[in-house]
Amino acid sequence: MHFEVTILGSNGAIPAHNRYPTSQFLNYNGQGFLLDCGEGTQLQMSKYNIKRGKLDHIFISHIHGDHFFGLMGILTSFNLNYREHPLHIHAYPGVEEIVRTYFKHAQTILRYEIIFHQVTADEPRVIYENDGLTVETIILKHRIPTTGFLFREKVGPRKILPAKLDQYQIPVHEISAIKMGGDFTTEGGSVIPNIELTHDPAPPRSYAFCTDTAYTESFIEQIRGVNVLYHEATFVHEHRARAAETGHSTTREAATIALKANVDKLIIGHFSARYEDLSQLLSECKDIFPNTELAIEGHLFSI
Amino acid sequence: MHFEVTILGSNGAIPAHNRYPTSQFLNYNGQGFLLDCGEGTQLQMSKYNIKRGKLDHIFISHIHGDHFFGLMGILTSFNLNYREHPLHIHAYPGVEEIVRTYFKHAQTILRYEIIFHQVTADEPRVIYENDGLTVETIILKHRIPTTGFLFREKVGPRKILPAKLDQYQIPVHEISAIKMGGDFTTEGGSVIPNIELTHDPAPPRSYAFCTDTAYTESFIEQIRGVNVLYHEATFVHEHRARAAETGHSTTREAATIALKANVDKLIIGHFSARYEDLSQLLSECKDIFPNTELAIEGHLFSI
Repeated sequence: MHFEVTILGSNGAIPAHNRYPTSQFLNYNGQGFLLDCGEGTQLQMSKYNIKRGKLDHIFISHIHGDHFFGLMGILTSFNLNYREHPLHIHAYPGVEEIVRTYFKHAQTILRYEIIFHQVTADEPRVIYENDGLTVETIILKHRIPTTGFLFREKVGPRKILPAKLDQYQIPVHEISAIKMGGDFTTEGGSVIPNIELTHDPAPPRSYAFCTDTAYTESFIEQIRGVNVLYHEATFVHEHRARAAETGHSTTREAATIALKANVDKLIIGHFSARYEDLSQLLSECKDIFPNTELAIEGHLFSI
Repeated sequence: MHFEVTILGSNGAIPAHNRYPTSQFLNYNGQGFLLDCGEGTQLQMSKYNIKRGKLDHIFISHIHGDHFFGLMGILTSFNLNYREHPLHIHAYPGVEEIVRTYFKHAQTILRYEIIFHQVTADEPRVIYENDGLTVETIILKHRIPTTGFLFREKVGPRKILPAKLDQYQIPVHEISAIKMGGDFTTEGGSVIPNIELTHDPAPPRSYAFCTDTAYTESFIEQIRGVNVLYHEATFVHEHRARAAETGHSTTREAATIALKANVDKLIIGHFSARYEDLSQLLSECKDIFPNTELAIEGHLFSI
């Protein structure tokens, strides 16, 4: 089961040093999810060979342009490329108003349906669910309503030990009940307990995407123990006053959240245009939380 | 006097083959004008070292995304970079509605003023004028109201022959009248005719930007004899049915307009994503109008 994130854009508000604004493509077992969609996202998808036909859900964290100015280009290109299946956009209502205003003036009749799902900033909610995972909102602390997104794999079915299939001649129609935890009764009437037939499934994996946000511990319990946390770190510690003023985080703040939430790995991004060299951002995080990596465009992180 | 155009984006509706959608930066004597503004324009401006502080006027040909999806990013970056002087946008009214809708939701209070000038598609008009040039709209033929833009240099003042300044001891305060065509009366009362003191100024130059458009001869008289014509050529001749269907031009059509309008040079662009190699587009134009060039990104054309 693939569960991986490709970084498409890693920069803060002003594109600089050939870094694009925020966007990430999440692939879960062949299903595509886009997390934010800054200007140029469709160009980056082409560059990194992202198959956009598998993209059915776009999540927008907030209505600042560096997180969604690439959206209309993607919607338009889908239309020109004869997309027919629906596309779901999870965003604050203003995004829908902007998109609809554009298509009205462009006199575009879309070949496919866009289904808007309204995100709210009042409390964390599960806003999407399929057989394999759930997506929850994370309430962040920024200048305007902003939400992160937490992708949690569901606990999978138990794994049957292949040797036991032979040993007890288990018929095919019994298998799904055993995977769900059921015991097996042989033809002779012996009950074989589930624990003898199966082992635990792989532990469910999780990915938290938190941008843009000032330092806040309010969501630490929600993200506790996730495999990978993406947390913005727009500024180095020295520029903490600027971070506070603009509703962003410093390196030390991002790393502190990672440490307190006991995550396995931290990825930082949304770098200010003032930093061409990112090494100080990384080293300041590593001082507090060693397993930190930079969101480098084109890099694929396996969750 | 610089009068030059840098190609920032040359592709048609879907970005492809590392080509960006339409945008051009026109520099007239240090003043900057942006002609269309497709997604990624601000990234291209950085790449090609365009000084955006000198950019005060943006012209948008029509409300199709590949001609203005980069606008909001530029407006936002101007704000983040502390721009204070006004910016003029010449466009159909829908552009203002889209821009204002975004800034409302982003809760952005701009540090600088955006002055919208409404373009209309009824007849060609001078929509901008300064000491050195005028800008006229060109009415094009596309699926929605669309205008090209014609930059015409004004006839400059006459050039005084340096030798005559000495010969007649012409005082400084007389010079501007002579440049405007006046004669000079010496202290002794002799009238020296202007023609003896000056020579003609350089002939005024002109640049016509025509995209998107189907073949139409309706503007040929307006652009007759321009130095450089940019005319879209989305398709090769073989795909002329597709051109007609979508309101675009073929190579042969663009070249025919250039020929009939007796321009000096033709630049073609707005290439369909189906063509990775552009050589056929170029050669088909050259068969009809030899002095044709491709709009290659980063290329600077002197007018």
